[in-house]
Amino acid sequence: MKTKRPLILVTNDDGITAPGIATLVEVMKTLGDVVVVAPDKPQSGMGHAITINSTLRINKVAIYGVKEEYSCSGTPVDCVKIAINKILKTKPDLVVSGINHGSNMSINVIYSGTMSAAVEGAIESIPSIGFSLLNESIDADFSASKKIVKKIAKQVLEKGLPKGVCLNVNIPKVKYSDIKGIKVCRQAKANWIEELDERKDPSGKSYFWLTGRFENYDKGKKDTDVWALENQYVSIVPTQFDLTAHDSIKYIAKWKF
Amino acid sequence: MKTKRPLILVTNDDGITAPGIATLVEVMKTLGDVVVVAPDKPQSGMGHAITINSTLRINKVAIYGVKEEYSCSGTPVDCVKIAINKILKTKPDLVVSGINHGSNMSINVIYSGTMSAAVEGAIESIPSIGFSLLNESIDADFSASKKIVKKIAKQVLEKGLPKGVCLNVNIPKVKYSDIKGIKVCRQAKANWIEELDERKDPSGKSYFWLTGRFENYDKGKKDTDVWALENQYVSIVPTQFDLTAHDSIKYIAKWKF
Repeated sequence: MKTKRPLILVTNDDGITAPGIATLVEVMKTLGDVVVVAPDKPQSGMGHAITINSTLRINKVAIYGVKEEYSCSGTPVDCVKIAINKILKTKPDLVVSGINHGSNMSINVIYSGTMSAAVEGAIESIPSIGFSLLNESIDADFSASKKIVKKIAKQVLEKGLPKGVCLNVNIPKVKYSDIKGIKVCRQAKANWIEELDERKDPSGKSYFWLTGRFENYDKGKKDTDVWALENQYVSIVPTQFDLTAHDSIKYIAKWKF
Repeated sequence: MKTKRPLILVTNDDGITAPGIATLVEVMKTLGDVVVVAPDKPQSGMGHAITINSTLRINKVAIYGVKEEYSCSGTPVDCVKIAINKILKTKPDLVVSGINHGSNMSINVIYSGTMSAAVEGAIESIPSIGFSLLNESIDADFSASKKIVKKIAKQVLEKGLPKGVCLNVNIPKVKYSDIKGIKVCRQAKANWIEELDERKDPSGKSYFWLTGRFENYDKGKKDTDVWALENQYVSIVPTQFDLTAHDSIKYIAKWKF
């Protein structure tokens, strides 16, 4: 029987002062001892970036009144690395990242700083979860998310996760009473159709904003995260970091080089 | 029968002036019409980062004497997005990234800007290859790489690649005559044991360099990229972007939330 409270590392990609991480810390405090190491500024879209051509800084802060809390100059993955290898004396029992302001369903997982932090936790063999709410607003209502986050984190603390697997949890933008349930799914095949928004600076030179339209190639497929979320379910995608296309090894091995 | 020369997009993560991309352009010129869109500065370790909280710039350059060439202020993935959606009139027949100065074997694939550019090509359903030489020196000898790159790129231009799959090619640091062959493998299970190098700035405050030791958990496994490279083979890992841990879906779906 475990007598010690679990040690929980909290990070995100929207920055240490975002309402989403405040919510996540609030829930995690009810489940264990919390250490926060999160970016000192928004780091959305950073994917699995790490800081190797530059230095990293951490600063002790006192925002959430938890065991230890630091802002970090780096990416979400840097935060996990520096927390595990420098700040924490023992490996955490759980890494949670988020709650992201906006969706990390489908192909977004690959661009997501939130999810990359969770994947880094899995690389370190720590049960890890990335949470996202399908609402990009700074004033998003996280009250339903709180209950969902607690249910899922409790299960993971109890049962652990298969080695090398973390969870990508997305929560639909509806009231708690309207959530139909929690569905374990696969990542939908989808893509962003980029529309580079070209503008002119005051000197007449072009610059661009990356923007786009989400295109789902798995429309109507009930085993996907996109379907679950469109139908008011919370989606959980078990997520791993072996990028090998195992099915293609034999085929390509036949080529004559 | 194809009469038109293939259109080849070249990018990298070491920056548009790195010797590795110069070598790649030189080889690709012998295979097709080349367009270069590459970062204006080193972008190693950027993973699948994209620029969404800031703007992007592209600048026409004249370094390699190819069809079109631009430096881009963004990440390697940004380069692919802006090339495909803004610069090129038609989809390229091939995206190549590299030649990276240093290894992208095993878990490095996930941190690698070079490989993320290739993965982005695959997301766009374009046959794509990331090339890396296991030599981080700016004076690395790319003469063996040239021959290897040409062999592999020719095959991919001829045969294409399975949908959603790109190639992660790593080349050992040996003479061409010492290369034992080309092996199609899986990504070895490995990790970086981080050792954060702590230093003091002139005002006495700490800062950190991310550094580490590569730990291979698949030692001696002959079907891995690490084994191939240690034994003087070129490694090819077919690489994909569905991060779903399919084997874990049923297990987690049984949980009671």
